[in-house]
Amino acid sequence: MKQTFKNVVVLLSGGLDSSTLAYLAAKESKSYLQNRVFILTFDYGQRHKKELECAKKISREVGAVEHQVVKFDLTLWGGSSLTEKDKKVPQKRKLTDKSIPNTYVPARNTIFLSFALAYAEAINAEEIYIGVNSVDYSGYVDCRRPFINKFQELIKLATVAGVKGRVIKIKTPLMNLSKAGIVKLGKKLGVNWSLTWSCYLGGKKACGLCDSCQLRLKGFALAGIKDPLKYKEFPPFYKINLKKL
Amino acid sequence: MKQTFKNVVVLLSGGLDSSTLAYLAAKESKSYLQNRVFILTFDYGQRHKKELECAKKISREVGAVEHQVVKFDLTLWGGSSLTEKDKKVPQKRKLTDKSIPNTYVPARNTIFLSFALAYAEAINAEEIYIGVNSVDYSGYVDCRRPFINKFQELIKLATVAGVKGRVIKIKTPLMNLSKAGIVKLGKKLGVNWSLTWSCYLGGKKACGLCDSCQLRLKGFALAGIKDPLKYKEFPPFYKINLKKL
Repeated sequence: MKQTFKNVVVLLSGGLDSSTLAYLAAKESKSYLQNRVFILTFDYGQRHKKELECAKKISREVGAVEHQVVKFDLTLWGGSSLTEKDKKVPQKRKLTDKSIPNTYVPARNTIFLSFALAYAEAINAEEIYIGVNSVDYSGYVDCRRPFINKFQELIKLATVAGVKGRVIKIKTPLMNLSKAGIVKLGKKLGVNWSLTWSCYLGGKKACGLCDSCQLRLKGFALAGIKDPLKYKEFPPFYKINLKKL
Repeated sequence: MKQTFKNVVVLLSGGLDSSTLAYLAAKESKSYLQNRVFILTFDYGQRHKKELECAKKISREVGAVEHQVVKFDLTLWGGSSLTEKDKKVPQKRKLTDKSIPNTYVPARNTIFLSFALAYAEAINAEEIYIGVNSVDYSGYVDCRRPFINKFQELIKLATVAGVKGRVIKIKTPLMNLSKAGIVKLGKKLGVNWSLTWSCYLGGKKACGLCDSCQLRLKGFALAGIKDPLKYKEFPPFYKINLKKL
């Protein structure tokens, strides 16, 4: 059967989830319809800029056709501990805490998807991959299914392509996976975890105590796999699960 | 009655419509509920960067609390004659031509509204003013009512404020006005038109022949008001209407 190609845009931060997503997008093709992967990363003034270097490396690993980094400054108005130096990133927060932490960045995924949509329309991509997840996550509203569904509806009206019936589709393959599930999927896909970065603080070693580190460590622990990254400390729950590794 | 304040975000390019909008937002207040105007402008690699200087001046004229300019680069992928040097901006295009011109920038208003939403959430603004118009316009899909309505629905799901019931409202007071109607409104509001810029080419004098110049000149002509800007040339239809001025 003749092989054909379709263009897809993948949103990649360089973290655990979006890196898994990039590997998935590169492989998730029927044999006769291969994805050509165009990767999009944002340099928005985040505290953990270190992830940008990771995104670059992961893009190479998955053989992306192109890796675009869009730069803009969300520290102009802040509103999040990731974009305001004076706000402290919470550490040792209980993962059972259902309140929205101050690491929430106002309208971040709306901005990210908007750029992905522009990029997708410009390069005639058929799909946008985004690594949102609403199982083991920090409760950000713009990671949830209703938000994604509404953005999908918006796409029909927001672009010339959409109005003409060529609707760019948002793919969220990680939406219903647990963090452990994402780690297991990453293992299957051969994700090079040593090239990824999750810690919000962005130091030399991961802090181990911010929400992002805790969720990552929980995922690896429950999957029974060792995270190759170096950590300064480990969260309380991890001391129990560590024995299993 | 005690005067109180509400914060509003106004999207301002520096053109005729959004400048009128900024004046309107600054004045459109019940006497006891005054708007505090926060202006947002985008430096996205547009050919007519000249409008940015205009936006700065208009922000001062209307007494904005703050004027933020967000910079990002849509020339990375282009897809429009406004963001690709090699694509020619159409001139002398008939205003009755209903096809979408190559000045359409993929997903531009989706990106603009996303940033406005982020800004609004961060500063606790209650409204976003956008100068979209679907009467005398270039047929851009993201200037139309269905797009705006869908984005309004998205806001409910996209922000913490929205989910908690504090839904930021999109205001589109120019949506159903003709260009002449916008000019007349501008006259009432005292808009300083000499500080505005519409021409897509962004030269020293406005070209007079691109869609944006033609629409502007048509508006002034039909309103019976002289545009203070200097033009290199005038569109064919203008030679007839000029006699009326």
